[in-house]
Amino acid sequence: MAEETTTAILLVSCRDQKGLVAGISDFIYRNDGNIVHADQHTDHQQGIFLQRVEWQLEGFRISRERIAEAFRPVAERYEMKWDLRFSDYVPRVAILASTLDHCLQDLLWRQRSGEYRATVPLVISNHDTLRPLIEGLGVQFRHYPITPDTKAEQEGRMLQTLQEERIDLVVLARYMRVLGQEFVSQYPNRIINIHHSFLPAFVGARPYHQAYERGVKVIGATAHYVTADLDQGPIIEQDVVRISHRDSTDDLVRKGRDLEKVVLARAVHLHLRNRILVYGNKTVVFD
Amino acid sequence: MAEETTTAILLVSCRDQKGLVAGISDFIYRNDGNIVHADQHTDHQQGIFLQRVEWQLEGFRISRERIAEAFRPVAERYEMKWDLRFSDYVPRVAILASTLDHCLQDLLWRQRSGEYRATVPLVISNHDTLRPLIEGLGVQFRHYPITPDTKAEQEGRMLQTLQEERIDLVVLARYMRVLGQEFVSQYPNRIINIHHSFLPAFVGARPYHQAYERGVKVIGATAHYVTADLDQGPIIEQDVVRISHRDSTDDLVRKGRDLEKVVLARAVHLHLRNRILVYGNKTVVFD
Amino acid sequence: MAEETTTAILLVSCRDQKGLVAGISDFIYRNDGNIVHADQHTDHQQGIFLQRVEWQLEGFRISRERIAEAFRPVAERYEMKWDLRFSDYVPRVAILASTLDHCLQDLLWRQRSGEYRATVPLVISNHDTLRPLIEGLGVQFRHYPITPDTKAEQEGRMLQTLQEERIDLVVLARYMRVLGQEFVSQYPNRIINIHHSFLPAFVGARPYHQAYERGVKVIGATAHYVTADLDQGPIIEQDVVRISHRDSTDDLVRKGRDLEKVVLARAVHLHLRNRILVYGNKTVVFD
Amino acid sequence: MAEETTTAILLVSCRDQKGLVAGISDFIYRNDGNIVHADQHTDHQQGIFLQRVEWQLEGFRISRERIAEAFRPVAERYEMKWDLRFSDYVPRVAILASTLDHCLQDLLWRQRSGEYRATVPLVISNHDTLRPLIEGLGVQFRHYPITPDTKAEQEGRMLQTLQEERIDLVVLARYMRVLGQEFVSQYPNRIINIHHSFLPAFVGARPYHQAYERGVKVIGATAHYVTADLDQGPIIEQDVVRISHRDSTDDLVRKGRDLEKVVLARAVHLHLRNRILVYGNKTVVFD
Repeated sequence: MAEETTTAILLVSCRDQKGLVAGISDFIYRNDGNIVHADQHTDHQQGIFLQRVEWQLEGFRISRERIAEAFRPVAERYEMKWDLRFSDYVPRVAILASTLDHCLQDLLWRQRSGEYRATVPLVISNHDTLRPLIEGLGVQFRHYPITPDTKAEQEGRMLQTLQEERIDLVVLARYMRVLGQEFVSQYPNRIINIHHSFLPAFVGARPYHQAYERGVKVIGATAHYVTADLDQGPIIEQDVVRISHRDSTDDLVRKGRDLEKVVLARAVHLHLRNRILVYGNKTVVFD
Repeated sequence: MAEETTTAILLVSCRDQKGLVAGISDFIYRNDGNIVHADQHTDHQQGIFLQRVEWQLEGFRISRERIAEAFRPVAERYEMKWDLRFSDYVPRVAILASTLDHCLQDLLWRQRSGEYRATVPLVISNHDTLRPLIEGLGVQFRHYPITPDTKAEQEGRMLQTLQEERIDLVVLARYMRVLGQEFVSQYPNRIINIHHSFLPAFVGARPYHQAYERGVKVIGATAHYVTADLDQGPIIEQDVVRISHRDSTDDLVRKGRDLEKVVLARAVHLHLRNRILVYGNKTVVFD
Repeated sequence: MAEETTTAILLVSCRDQKGLVAGISDFIYRNDGNIVHADQHTDHQQGIFLQRVEWQLEGFRISRERIAEAFRPVAERYEMKWDLRFSDYVPRVAILASTLDHCLQDLLWRQRSGEYRATVPLVISNHDTLRPLIEGLGVQFRHYPITPDTKAEQEGRMLQTLQEERIDLVVLARYMRVLGQEFVSQYPNRIINIHHSFLPAFVGARPYHQAYERGVKVIGATAHYVTADLDQGPIIEQDVVRISHRDSTDDLVRKGRDLEKVVLARAVHLHLRNRILVYGNKTVVFD
Repeated sequence: MAEETTTAILLVSCRDQKGLVAGISDFIYRNDGNIVHADQHTDHQQGIFLQRVEWQLEGFRISRERIAEAFRPVAERYEMKWDLRFSDYVPRVAILASTLDHCLQDLLWRQRSGEYRATVPLVISNHDTLRPLIEGLGVQFRHYPITPDTKAEQEGRMLQTLQEERIDLVVLARYMRVLGQEFVSQYPNRIINIHHSFLPAFVGARPYHQAYERGVKVIGATAHYVTADLDQGPIIEQDVVRISHRDSTDDLVRKGRDLEKVVLARAVHLHLRNRILVYGNKTVVFD
């Protein structure tokens, strides 16, 4: 990783109107900011403006603590929804897994190798299987077994743990259980799931078996933010791989694992780099 | 195209059992045939054996007229379903279209340029729009306008025309209408449709608009044999292309056209080369 | 195609420095322009800033004839290289071909179907083969046969024809001959070639045969601007398709044709939409 | 992984001639073998026949120890080059690495998770960096530092270690050094390397930097058998990923890692499943 100067990142969405790009860039320029990335998208069908702009803090005339306050009048003038982030903030990520470890290990490798600027203080699972692996890596492992009867209660405990650990992002690395609405509502656009099909095909359980039955010639994987509706949240990233009649369901599972890892990894990368804006049920990915 | 000697092609499917590969190859070898392609697939989950074998007619001791008769005892011993084709047969293809001409023109270009060994004596449409184009290419154009009231009757006329023209393969090049069961049943595994999504996602009407609404990051196209169930027939070929939030529905339609053309063209190519075996609701593609 | 209001498009490149985004967007905003697309890229390794910004002319306080004049002081302050385009301008495209017609027909289909906002008044070839096809479509066909001895002279005539026809963009649709330096220098970043390999692999002649010999598992196609160095110009678009040991050179040629068509078509689309900025030997594609 | 009965696998190549498929399948059938996979390829340009055939040992009338002896007359009649393998043999794999661990860890994960039927008793490196990681996984780690002066001698020691460990397959997981001819000649078609470009583009050092300089729009990775000529051996598998002007060399390295892992993993999978036949400088992959 190259050394990088610290930057501020502004993510903005609002009703489309004149002067938005100028208003934002002028705010940065007037205060001697050097823009290193600016990208904008207008959804003309819905009349929505979305922008990501990133500038160097070095030389900027407003101290980082006061940027939000200084920007607020601009935001209010245009009735913006906005987020201000700093590139040197190190997000805290919790990974939820079940018994499969391919996505989990892949994410942990990326974090430890420095590919992700993030810490992973915590792995949660509804099984105890992966404890030795995770604790062997020096990561805290929490086991919350879940039955239909204990689900609400256990998810309540999980939530409390996440809050105690000040978790910014929850990643479902083949967690294999549907999270309750209460849980989901606490982390809007901050829970990323990997579904092992190219949604909206093969929603729900056992998508590789569904794909095998249907006789498709490509299989896919989809990373999306979790919402109250199963497999219906905003899609962040998708990819596919070709298969043929020679591939058994075991082969689909094997080929699919490689897809799941890389699609989930890309989605987490984009989120950690503050490159995703959600509006309606869609994402804008400023890559 | 390179010069090729004429070959016989045998497509076989039956219950898996010992001696199938040997039984078939021995039949060819005993009669001095030179095998140029042999590929076999066993669906272990269903216990089904499928094979394609192709050998040169030159030097084969049985005249082409008598091969079927000579092979019948082998087929009966193993209770095979089988088809015998000859590489110098030139199939007769009818294309059904509506008002969009991209797939239609693409197919006609491939036929005239020699990419396909086939003739296209006939284009049928429910609109009259494409008549000048088609007739300008010296191809017969038939206009069968269809309303809910006249559908059965008109499809009956279409069937009659296809039979008069001794059509081997019907290609729906964005025909945009659902064919009736009577029609479909006359051409089992001989009607190829292009659907503008990666099935089973976005079945039915306006898939690009559905894809836009859902916010997917890839769109696809699917070529399949037509059965009585809409968009449910055996899939021959699929492919996808990446899209982003920047793509409007117009962009999806534009990018999708390129996919539709190439996916349909590949499926027709495979069919014309006798490389597809259908079993259950799936295809084996010996490519 | 949806109806669109007319827009102005500014393509800018210069040394990276503070205030560029603000300077440009402020110019537009002060004059009541509504920005519909703004995208920016900074090449940090070379310290180069590149931007594309597009705004509606409707309501803009400067008439289109005077925008360049009004913008010049901004451009000079930052020592910008810049281009101003209008979305309702219909570029004039000449296509150069040899005897192969797949890319040529594909481009003409796109133009006539309205996919491209452009006219194609002229096709030039070093063979006379395609004349009936082209003239049948109502397009002017010019035959300039070229031998080593007559090359300079004939290319001089071609240049004159292009100038008489006020050609904006030259597309080499498998033209198969190397253009002389004099010719190339007259249309910098305005000649697009399709090379039938994923450059820089398989530079030069017969790339499919080279690919077959090398035993690669993917083949590709590359659209690039033509410079004095053969196959070395800035790359606009590339794509690939998987092949296998079963594919003969004929199959590579066939599969490659589909790639060539779509890769060239995308590059021409991007150029016509003013989405490409060239710097050094690279392109920025604002897609 | 599903339970599988043990199979014998025969890989055959020879001059194309009549009776080959029949000769081989008849040998199996006469001895009551049940063929589960048979695939054949003829390179018509070179007149070479290649086949892979796999049958169940259960019920086969020749004991596994005597199959080779029994098949020899068939092989000699047709002057075949041939290999006989058994599916329950567990190959012994040595991985050579340098300081980068992404491919190495990925391969080890696949082996330990049961994706590969293989053991990895040994990792060799020219640096000592990865020792704790490898030994922590219970795998033997050998450090052979190499300088130009000591290369021949150290590679001699490596060879000896490989032989002591009865290694069947050597995988270069970003080993980053060129192996000497003596070393390579000891493991013909049994050393797999991953090169981080789509060969033959960007042979040699720093291919991602070369790709960045050239401004390509896709990057790739290539797994190939190692021969005496650098990066020139038979290609087993290749894949690519799209990039854009936004990607710095760091981004290419990051995106490329994911490609390298999956392309190398697929090649190793195919080799371990005895699905690759090498002839000339090419591979036939029976997948």
